[in-house]
Amino acid sequence: VTEDQPPAVATAGPVKVVGTGLLGASVGLGLTTRGVHVILEDISPTALALARDLGAGVPASAEDPQPALVVVATPPDVVVPTVAAQLRAHPDAVVTDVASVKGLVVDGLAALPEDGRPRWERYVGSHPMAGRERSGAAGASADLFAARPWVIADGGTSSAEAVLAVRALAVDLGAIPVALTPAEHDDAVALVSHVPQVAASLVASALAEAPEEALALAGQGLRDVTRVAAGDPILWASILAGNAAPVARALRALQGDLERVVGALEAVSARGLAASGSLQVLVAAIAAGNAGVARIPGKHGGAARRYGEVTVLVPDRPGELGRLLVEVGEVGVNIEDLRLEHSPRQKVGMATLAVLPSAVKTLEDALEQRGWRVVYG
Amino acid sequence: VTEDQPPAVATAGPVKVVGTGLLGASVGLGLTTRGVHVILEDISPTALALARDLGAGVPASAEDPQPALVVVATPPDVVVPTVAAQLRAHPDAVVTDVASVKGLVVDGLAALPEDGRPRWERYVGSHPMAGRERSGAAGASADLFAARPWVIADGGTSSAEAVLAVRALAVDLGAIPVALTPAEHDDAVALVSHVPQVAASLVASALAEAPEEALALAGQGLRDVTRVAAGDPILWASILAGNAAPVARALRALQGDLERVVGALEAVSARGLAASGSLQVLVAAIAAGNAGVARIPGKHGGAARRYGEVTVLVPDRPGELGRLLVEVGEVGVNIEDLRLEHSPRQKVGMATLAVLPSAVKTLEDALEQRGWRVVYG
Repeated sequence: VTEDQPPAVATAGPVKVVGTGLLGASVGLGLTTRGVHVILEDISPTALALARDLGAGVPASAEDPQPALVVVATPPDVVVPTVAAQLRAHPDAVVTDVASVKGLVVDGLAALPEDGRPRWERYVGSHPMAGRERSGAAGASADLFAARPWVIADGGTSSAEAVLAVRALAVDLGAIPVALTPAEHDDAVALVSHVPQVAASLVASALAEAPEEALALAGQGLRDVTRVAAGDPILWASILAGNAAPVARALRALQGDLERVVGALEAVSARGLAASGSLQVLVAAIAAGNAGVARIPGKHGGAARRYGEVTVLVPDRPGELGRLLVEVGEVGVNIEDLRLEHSPRQKVGMATLAVLPSAVKTLEDALEQRGWRVVYG
Repeated sequence: VTEDQPPAVATAGPVKVVGTGLLGASVGLGLTTRGVHVILEDISPTALALARDLGAGVPASAEDPQPALVVVATPPDVVVPTVAAQLRAHPDAVVTDVASVKGLVVDGLAALPEDGRPRWERYVGSHPMAGRERSGAAGASADLFAARPWVIADGGTSSAEAVLAVRALAVDLGAIPVALTPAEHDDAVALVSHVPQVAASLVASALAEAPEEALALAGQGLRDVTRVAAGDPILWASILAGNAAPVARALRALQGDLERVVGALEAVSARGLAASGSLQVLVAAIAAGNAGVARIPGKHGGAARRYGEVTVLVPDRPGELGRLLVEVGEVGVNIEDLRLEHSPRQKVGMATLAVLPSAVKTLEDALEQRGWRVVYG
C-alpha cells in the first residue's frame, strides 16, 4: 500500500445518495475521498451542483450502473415515499435513510398497501448522530461523522446483508455503529435529546415574565441549561410530535420526580429542616442527577469511563505545557483527557490530567520529583 | 503609576476571609493581587495551607490587626453563627457573607436572642454570582468575579457605610454590583439558578437507568442541559432548602407548563396530528422558551474572548500529545485553551486547541505539513 492509495473501505459501490443537504453531501464526500463511486440525486439543481462541486460525487444520469447501496437523506416528511421509490427502482440495492426518528419510517413502510410495498428486507434505517449549526451542502465535511455514534435500527425486518452494508458505511465514514431497534432508538433520543429540549424550553419560558434585575443574575449555568431552548419552534414541535409516545412517557416519569422535589421544598418551607426526610429527598434528587450525568460519554462518542485526575500548576510561558506533557510521556503514563485553565493575572495555569486511576500516584510522585507543583484535593 | 504598582482599590484593609474554599480563596487572591492585606481563616488546616500557597493571603494569627472588612465564605449552614461571631469579635468591622441565599441569613440573625445579638447594621449580605464546577481553593482565581453580577442585599437594616464597603469590594474584584432586597434576590436566584439546577438534575437522573446504548447517542445539547447536574448533592440540597419557598413556587408554575406539553404529546400519540390544537401547544411551548432565552444577557465585558479552534487527531500513545504541543510551539502559535477528547474504541484522541482566530489557518497548514491529521468543521 503506497501513501497515495485511498484507505481500504468495506463499502461496495456504487453508492447513490438521494438528497444532497448537510448529511447527504457529507456521506458523498466521505465516500468519494475513500475512492467509492458516488451518484448524487436532489430535486434542487442548485443543491445538486453545489454537492458536485464540493466533490461529493457525480449527478445521476441514465447511464449509471445500478447502485449497491442507496442512502436517503431527504427531509423527514418525504423519507417514507422516497425509501419505497428507491427500493422499487433498484431491486438489488440495500436502502437506508438517515432521519432522526426511526419508528415512524418503519411504520410508514409497513402501512403501504401490500401490493405497492417493495420487498423491504433490503431496507434498514439508520441515524448518524452528527450535525452542525450550518445546514446544507455548504456545511458538508468528509469528517462530519468521525467518532460520532451512527445508529443502525433493525427491527427484525432487515436482512443480515442490509445491516452489514449500512454498518460498513458507518465504519468507512469513521463513525461508531450502534445497533438498536427502531423503538429502542426512539426511546433513547427521547431521553438524550427530546426531554432535555422540553426541560430547557420550560425553564427558559419562566424567564419571559421575570423582572429585569433577575435576568441580570444569569450565569453560565442558566445559559448552558437553556441554550437549546433557542431552537426553531416549528422544527422542534414536529420532532417532538414525531416521537410523541416515547417523549410523553419519559416526561411523565420526570413529573413524578419533580413532584417529590416540590413536596420536599414545601415541607421545608412550612416546617424548616425539621421536616422529616425532606432534605434527604433533595440530596437524593441531586445525587441521582450526578449518577446520570456521569454516564454521559465524552464529546466524540467514547464510552464514559472513570479516570483519576492529577492537577499541576503550569507557568504561563510558551512551551511549558508541552514540556509537562513530554515529561508525562517519559514517565510512561498515558493522558486520557486534559483540561487547561488559564488565569492571565496569575501568570500560572492549572492543567488537570485524566489518567488511569492506577497511574495517579506514580504520576504525582514522578512530577513532583521533576519539580512540578502538584495540586492535591 | 508604574507597571509594577498594583491598581488603585477602594477597599480598605485588612480584609479577613473566613472560609478558604473556592469563593473565599478567590476573594483573597483578587485582593492580594491588588495590594490589599488579606488574613485567612479556615477550620481545615489543609484548605488554609493551599489558599496560602496559592497567594490568597496570610493565615490569621494572634498579632493580626483588626480587620476593616470580614468576608464570610463558609458553607451556607454555618453562615449565621459565623457572621454573628465575626460581628462580635470585630466590633468596628463591616461583615458580609457570600452565601447564595440571603433571606435565611437575615432571618437567622434576626432570630438570635436580643441580648446575644450583635449590632448588625454593620452586616450586609452579598452574593457574587460566580462559581465553577471545581470547588475548593484549587479552583480559585483572582478573576473569578470579573464582569459577574455581585448582589448586595440590604433589606433596610444595614448602614450606608456597610453597603458602601461591600460595594467597593465587589467593584475592586471586577464584579458588577446589583442592589436587591433579600426577598428580591431569593426570587431571582430561584428562577435563574435553582429551578435550572432542579431541571438539569431531573433530566440527568433519567439517564441513570437508561441503557448504555442510549447514552452513546448523547450530543452537545444534553451535555449543556445537564452540566450543572454534576454539582455536589449536599451543597445543592442545602442551597435549595435555604430558598425553599421561592423555588417551590417557581417549580409549581413550571409543573403547569409541563402538564400542558405532556397532554399535547399524549393527544398526538393517541390521535396523530389530527389531535386538534396539540401541535400548536408544542409550538407555543418552544416559542415561549425562545422568548425567555432571548432575555438572558450575554457574558459581560471583555471576559469572554472569541478564539478560533483547531482540532487534531492524536494517536493514543504516551507522549503524542506532548509532541503535538511542542510542534505547535515551534510553529510559534500560542495555545489559549485546550480540550482533549478520547475515544477508547478508536485508539485515538481529538485535541481541540483554542488559538487566536488569525492563527487558525497557519496552524492547520503547518500541522498538516508535519503529518498531523487535522479535523475540519
